[in-house]
Amino acid sequence: MAYINIENRDKAIKMLSNRGVTLRDIAEITHTIQVRYYDDLTVEECVRNILKVVEKTEVQNVIFTGIALDELCEKGLLPEPLSELVDNDNSLYGVDEILALGIVNVYGSIGLTNFGYVDREKIGIIGVVDKIGKQPNKCMTFLDDIIGAIAAAAASRIAHNRLN
Amino acid sequence: MAYINIENRDKAIKMLSNRGVTLRDIAEITHTIQVRYYDDLTVEECVRNILKVVEKTEVQNVIFTGIALDELCEKGLLPEPLSELVDNDNSLYGVDEILALGIVNVYGSIGLTNFGYVDREKIGIIGVVDKIGKQPNKCMTFLDDIIGAIAAAAASRIAHNRLN
Amino acid sequence: MAYINIENRDKAIKMLSNRGVTLRDIAEITHTIQVRYYDDLTVEECVRNILKVVEKTEVQNVIFTGIALDELCEKGLLPEPLSELVDNDNSLYGVDEILALGIVNVYGSIGLTNFGYVDREKIGIIGVVDKIGKQPNKCMTFLDDIIGAIAAAAASRIAHNRLN
Amino acid sequence: MAYINIENRDKAIKMLSNRGVTLRDIAEITHTIQVRYYDDLTVEECVRNILKVVEKTEVQNVIFTGIALDELCEKGLLPEPLSELVDNDNSLYGVDEILALGIVNVYGSIGLTNFGYVDREKIGIIGVVDKIGKQPNKCMTFLDDIIGAIAAAAASRIAHNRLN
Repeated sequence: MAYINIENRDKAIKMLSNRGVTLRDIAEITHTIQVRYYDDLTVEECVRNILKVVEKTEVQNVIFTGIALDELCEKGLLPEPLSELVDNDNSLYGVDEILALGIVNVYGSIGLTNFGYVDREKIGIIGVVDKIGKQPNKCMTFLDDIIGAIAAAAASRIAHNRLN
Repeated sequence: MAYINIENRDKAIKMLSNRGVTLRDIAEITHTIQVRYYDDLTVEECVRNILKVVEKTEVQNVIFTGIALDELCEKGLLPEPLSELVDNDNSLYGVDEILALGIVNVYGSIGLTNFGYVDREKIGIIGVVDKIGKQPNKCMTFLDDIIGAIAAAAASRIAHNRLN
Repeated sequence: MAYINIENRDKAIKMLSNRGVTLRDIAEITHTIQVRYYDDLTVEECVRNILKVVEKTEVQNVIFTGIALDELCEKGLLPEPLSELVDNDNSLYGVDEILALGIVNVYGSIGLTNFGYVDREKIGIIGVVDKIGKQPNKCMTFLDDIIGAIAAAAASRIAHNRLN
Repeated sequence: MAYINIENRDKAIKMLSNRGVTLRDIAEITHTIQVRYYDDLTVEECVRNILKVVEKTEVQNVIFTGIALDELCEKGLLPEPLSELVDNDNSLYGVDEILALGIVNVYGSIGLTNFGYVDREKIGIIGVVDKIGKQPNKCMTFLDDIIGAIAAAAASRIAHNRLN
């Protein structure tokens, strides 16, 4: 497909990395949930699929927007009542899930189940990020859903490639 | 809210019941996932919330459509290749998740995580339905996602009511 | 991308054609809405993009499901109250739009606006299909939304290709 | 329904008003698109329905988030490349539509068509906001989609109330 924006892909990867998250961290989540279906699946194959997911413009745009909101929250630059809703990851604030859906949907609805599962069970790096987000002056409200969505999208991508 | 269609609500409940699923079965899923947040939550409160979810026109329409597809599949009335995709709950067939999203969304995106979790872990009656669906001449492809979506929607509804 | 199911693509195209809709008909809708942005856009380029959209598993699955529901409705094989809701394209029945969203989302949310526009304005073949659906014993409730969604997805695809 | 947050409703209305948009402006869009179905529909009935839409937590959260992003963009506080994507309302940037979907979905998918239509045709205040957003140092990228989504959600609400 022609519509790959390499420059923005690299910016998105850097933004994740600045928040302490590597593509390999996300690939490990995908591996954890998919290895029970494909026992020859390696973390390397998952990394390659994560990279393909992050090439998509829609995915990049969600990463740019969500991480910016987390960082602006940490810097005290969000207005009220948004600042409080985001800072506490208020349980009725669902905009982080809405954005994540924008990533999952690009690879079809079969990713929904995996997204919900890894998000709730806080698999791998999601659990780490979640704990950091609870520290004072730290906000990871959007990041954990973004990670879960990328991992689930890669899982869908692997299922599509293996089954067709 | 004025827009409650009681007649269709009762038809939807009957349709679920004809497939072996009571509102209490679904309420027990909601209870399982929410009791860790609200330790005074009873199955009865969950039943009342399930009932409210099933009053919504959108929810009824998804129930009517999804269960009809399962039943038509069992009767051999779906054309190919749809029949095979639905009968085997093909892992790339995501229309059941798309329909379920139509239920979850009515109570906002905070239900997404719970939907994915109960669907993957096959909590309660979902596990029962899933096993029946694997028997010859049985099809429960849409039903399990519908149950998970109603349970997740009720969980969101409870969260909204408790927190506001 | 590896995950192209050519056999199902051809079945989906045949199913559309059996309902009186060619890929060129859909391409003309895409052309109508996009030529004002790209004045060198030809209907042929739109046809090529429609073909790429129809290669996607998710899109094929929605086509199979939606057209089956229309045809089962015409044959009197849908149970009540679904039959009446679908036959009259009841204005509160939104499952056709939910399914269409499953097509639009694959190319990202920028397709939403175009989908809503062509669906409401009944551009090109959508208007023809809509009129046929109003005849006795005819049902095109899902088909018109499917056409609009494919046309909108192709418009998004063209925008992605031209702008990156 | 119990889950109405009046305090946040009023904050959301004030935030819209600070950006130059009244509930009556949005109600007039709803009236424009629905009066052809209900010729006794008044702008006042539309205002009452808009008010009900804005009582929903999900809708408030999207308003808080979207308008904050527009305002942070105007103040030069968004990081690159997000700042440029939002400032120019880049045609591949679809996060504004993703957020709007979070509003439309609360009243079901029948709102999708109206959302797409009013957004593309820039009905009423949407056209005004769109023009202001093109001025230097002004950003209305999220606001126009939010307005269209609220207007479409109110149209769905009216349809539900009238038809049941």
